[in-house]
Amino acid sequence: PKKIATSIVDTAKHAKKLGRDDPRRVYHSLKVGLALTVVSLFYYYQPLYDNFGVSAMWAVLTVVVVFEFSVGATLSKGLNRGLATLLAGALGVGAHHLASLSGHVAEPILLGFFVFVQAAVSTFLRFFPKIKARYDYGMLIFILTFALVSVSGFREDEILELAHKRLTTILIGGSACIIIAICVCPVWAGEDLHKLIALNMEKLGSFLEGFGEVHLNKPSAEERKDEKKTPLNGYQSVLTSKNTEDVLANLAKWEPGHGKFLFRHPWAQYLKIGTLNRQCGYRIEALSSYLNSDLLAPEEIKEEFETICGTLSLECGKALNELSRDTKKMTKPSGVAQHISNAKAAAKTLNSLLKSDLWADMELLDLVPTATAASLLIDLLICTEQIYEAV
Amino acid sequence: PKKIATSIVDTAKHAKKLGRDDPRRVYHSLKVGLALTVVSLFYYYQPLYDNFGVSAMWAVLTVVVVFEFSVGATLSKGLNRGLATLLAGALGVGAHHLASLSGHVAEPILLGFFVFVQAAVSTFLRFFPKIKARYDYGMLIFILTFALVSVSGFREDEILELAHKRLTTILIGGSACIIIAICVCPVWAGEDLHKLIALNMEKLGSFLEGFGEVHLNKPSAEERKDEKKTPLNGYQSVLTSKNTEDVLANLAKWEPGHGKFLFRHPWAQYLKIGTLNRQCGYRIEALSSYLNSDLLAPEEIKEEFETICGTLSLECGKALNELSRDTKKMTKPSGVAQHISNAKAAAKTLNSLLKSDLWADMELLDLVPTATAASLLIDLLICTEQIYEAV
Repeated sequence: PKKIATSIVDTAKHAKKLGRDDPRRVYHSLKVGLALTVVSLFYYYQPLYDNFGVSAMWAVLTVVVVFEFSVGATLSKGLNRGLATLLAGALGVGAHHLASLSGHVAEPILLGFFVFVQAAVSTFLRFFPKIKARYDYGMLIFILTFALVSVSGFREDEILELAHKRLTTILIGGSACIIIAICVCPVWAGEDLHKLIALNMEKLGSFLEGFGEVHLNKPSAEERKDEKKTPLNGYQSVLTSKNTEDVLANLAKWEPGHGKFLFRHPWAQYLKIGTLNRQCGYRIEALSSYLNSDLLAPEEIKEEFETICGTLSLECGKALNELSRDTKKMTKPSGVAQHISNAKAAAKTLNSLLKSDLWADMELLDLVPTATAASLLIDLLICTEQIYEAV
Repeated sequence: PKKIATSIVDTAKHAKKLGRDDPRRVYHSLKVGLALTVVSLFYYYQPLYDNFGVSAMWAVLTVVVVFEFSVGATLSKGLNRGLATLLAGALGVGAHHLASLSGHVAEPILLGFFVFVQAAVSTFLRFFPKIKARYDYGMLIFILTFALVSVSGFREDEILELAHKRLTTILIGGSACIIIAICVCPVWAGEDLHKLIALNMEKLGSFLEGFGEVHLNKPSAEERKDEKKTPLNGYQSVLTSKNTEDVLANLAKWEPGHGKFLFRHPWAQYLKIGTLNRQCGYRIEALSSYLNSDLLAPEEIKEEFETICGTLSLECGKALNELSRDTKKMTKPSGVAQHISNAKAAAKTLNSLLKSDLWADMELLDLVPTATAASLLIDLLICTEQIYEAV
């Protein structure tokens, strides 16, 4: 019993944390409850029930299935569902009519054949990457509605009425979802994408700033350990964020204009920036193994060398952080150019330092990657800036 | 009209390519068609129709929604759907009974309240990462069934019968899916995961072998370009494969034993190996920018240096390829140790070479990352080997 109690407490704590990390999760749960209750009442009250009969249950079903976390996802599912039902309903009625012309014996065979061909073809279409990304759910509903309408038509005399009812109830459920999703504390996928990209940039920037500071101030070994734990591992999530970005960008395309984002906001640009972020992240991943090792250099220029490496990293980091702030505010970057030119100057000094004749004793394994990564970073920064200005 | 014709031809070509790349896609499409036709006939024939009535449509619905590409996904969805329907049906009947005790006025309010609370709580639960990974679909069906049963119960006199019918038809649809998915050309998520990991290893290995050969043979610039295009960019897909791996591992956990895989195969190990693969890939990404640049070194040891770098890379690549082959066959690695020790020897020579006094002129930017990455690779290899032996 004690074990159970602690596990309940743990779960509750976990739930609280989930809610605090992103309060929109709580709102979303309440919104789903609201939408479902509203639609259930539609089903429940007598006059509506007389109109729709059992089909009213499709409205409940639609709400549960269509209501997603972000507005984009809800819209995409709702529109997919509505359009697919319309199309498949029409085709299903057609198929049923065609089959019924062929006489009593051939009818089931023909219907079975239609269902088989339609299901196989639609399922195969779902493997096309473009269709998978945007219309996967629509294809599913298409298969479903076609099978339901064409087969059930044999039983129910008024097949058109069935199709019509199904469509109407789905429209009711779908529009309830969309209205509630947009009007009550909306969660915009586009905004999330925007924030994610800016946050990733910031994480990379923090790492570089931290890396620079470590080598400028040379804290004692203990201090270094502390520092390393807190902000410097954040960049790792950047490396694996590709999938989230793709999904969000796909959803964002479905959303109408909102806030600072117009309808045809160039979401694809975000993906490009995301890819650049990740390439930057890969360099940092390679760099991070040198975080706690001393940069070994000939004694004469060791101090100078470390300072320059540190400065370079710091300036790159500052530029990225600045860029992230500007992206968040959607203003033109202002201070970034300064940091970049500082970083460039540092890189130049570093290059000439590397060409000097002082490197006779060869413990280079530790320091050159730093320079390499930093110079790569500058390239990336320029790229990012260009893209940002294009937005 | 000509434009339309070419776009149709293009689509057909694309479809053919999709089918040839993975013939299982075609089989899967046919399987879905088969399952749907079988279940539609259930719905269609008179005696069965008499038993189930309109509810038989749930069977059709279940097939469309549950039938997924891999056995794991189908099983997971089918079991989730079945169990969730059972549980939610029971709870829904309970809620309905409770509400009906409270008199005519309070009943709709109470029912609405139940639906609201249940939907909100279940939706929130879906944000728990563990539940999201394995039971997301079950939670959805839970909300759905609860709402349907508890609300519709008010109308239909025989609520128990509704719940019972829904459950039975879902079981029919679900088991049809599972049987067809397992018996007709099954697609195992576990096997896919296994192959993906081995393939990723192979891609990394090919890059390293190619990299090694480039520096050993020093082909002319044109040859180099050709080589670069074909096998050496393959590793990039390794970097972003995390999501696919996670999904496959999740699905593989649902699958029963099949072929060489027992029921409780350590799928988590695959994820670990996948992570190591990716870390290896990050190093290679950093390394790849040096692919076509000459390694600059003092003239006296240039030849030797390039040979050693090439050998190191080649041996690492061979070891990875060997490991990939052994993984595919699920045999203990045999030749790998030899390659690794070769690579270690090369790395040792490289290290001593770097410590020599010949590096006075400083164009080091180009070569040290090579050495760094290669020595990192050795570490990674050892790790991978250890994990592989643990499997």
